[in-house]
Amino acid sequence: MKISELSRRTGVTVATIKYYIREGLLPAGTPVTVTTADYDAAHVDRLRLIRALVDIGQLSITTVGELLAALDREEAAQPTANGRTTNKARAAAVRSAVTATHDALAAGAPPISAAPERALAAMAALGWTVDPKSSALGQLETALAGLDAVLLPPSEATLRAYGGAALAVAEADSAGTPAGSPAEIVRHTVIGTVLYEPVLIALRRLAQEELVGRSRSQR
Amino acid sequence: MKISELSRRTGVTVATIKYYIREGLLPAGTPVTVTTADYDAAHVDRLRLIRALVDIGQLSITTVGELLAALDREEAAQPTANGRTTNKARAAAVRSAVTATHDALAAGAPPISAAPERALAAMAALGWTVDPKSSALGQLETALAGLDAVLLPPSEATLRAYGGAALAVAEADSAGTPAGSPAEIVRHTVIGTVLYEPVLIALRRLAQEELVGRSRSQR
Repeated sequence: MKISELSRRTGVTVATIKYYIREGLLPAGTPVTVTTADYDAAHVDRLRLIRALVDIGQLSITTVGELLAALDREEAAQPTANGRTTNKARAAAVRSAVTATHDALAAGAPPISAAPERALAAMAALGWTVDPKSSALGQLETALAGLDAVLLPPSEATLRAYGGAALAVAEADSAGTPAGSPAEIVRHTVIGTVLYEPVLIALRRLAQEELVGRSRSQR
Repeated sequence: MKISELSRRTGVTVATIKYYIREGLLPAGTPVTVTTADYDAAHVDRLRLIRALVDIGQLSITTVGELLAALDREEAAQPTANGRTTNKARAAAVRSAVTATHDALAAGAPPISAAPERALAAMAALGWTVDPKSSALGQLETALAGLDAVLLPPSEATLRAYGGAALAVAEADSAGTPAGSPAEIVRHTVIGTVLYEPVLIALRRLAQEELVGRSRSQR
């Protein structure tokens, strides 16, 4: 299809499509003449993914670039599926995709200067064993330092409740990973990590409203 | 203290402090001469709160303005504490603060044009009763529509797991609300709603890494 048709099908303007191609987020079309190129269904899918990561995931274009590069790299690194994917291959695909995703998401974040002491204390309280160099530890440290600054640090009970909820969600993500090829598992892990975050945040707000409603009906 | 001292104590530049005053996020100091004003500890606290909402909560200046206006309005609306705050007064303060916070956070978001059908179906599946006009329903609808667009909609099992986790977190927030005056409860609810979101997101990523680590040690 022409770029105008690609634009019509996805609702993304031609100028924005050209910008994504220049930034390396979207592969260029197949040249037809000096000034026109041909686009296919893969371009439609990729554009929809970019829009979801920008609009729903609220990621910057730079971070989308990092994430798509990680996705492409991880998909290419998977063995071609021949027959049923073993549990071992499945676990390896998820493991590799999780690390690549978190690193891509943290690529734009400023590095934390000191050791993430609050985050490491939280891991110890939860009994979790994560890589001390994990980028997510830096995120947690920043969040906890911000709560300290406004004198609202979590109690140990609150931390345990959040940790338990986070683990339940991660287990559901893992259980919900499709029984497909390693490449499909990678895609689900990378994209799901980003696009399920706003679902969790919206549901937390709705859960607050649900609880408030229950307290009202008990008056 | 002078504005230079306020800047030194909070690490916020004088130009940024003046910008926050112009935008109405921070009250002006008490005039001392035509060109200087006096600032106090309340300015230090408010500046730290603004920085946390911007840096940790990732809110725009407009949204911070909406949120602080909601906080000030809700605090002023609470009766002065005389003696112990009753459970009824406590529940009323939380109820009012939750609604005001969600509305402030959603003030900048584009309105969704159609009924939030996916979000309402999710509420029905979870057995939750929320106001159909809730701004958080619009957020959930947007998140679910994005997942539909990339062909990764949640299964009912995933939705239930996320809903259960969200409710556990909301219950922990409620249990962790300090037994203080209604104004303190409001402050905890408004600020906690925003600043605990990044904690939950970081913990979800760390939970993924913890699960991946467990699967590796079981090889």
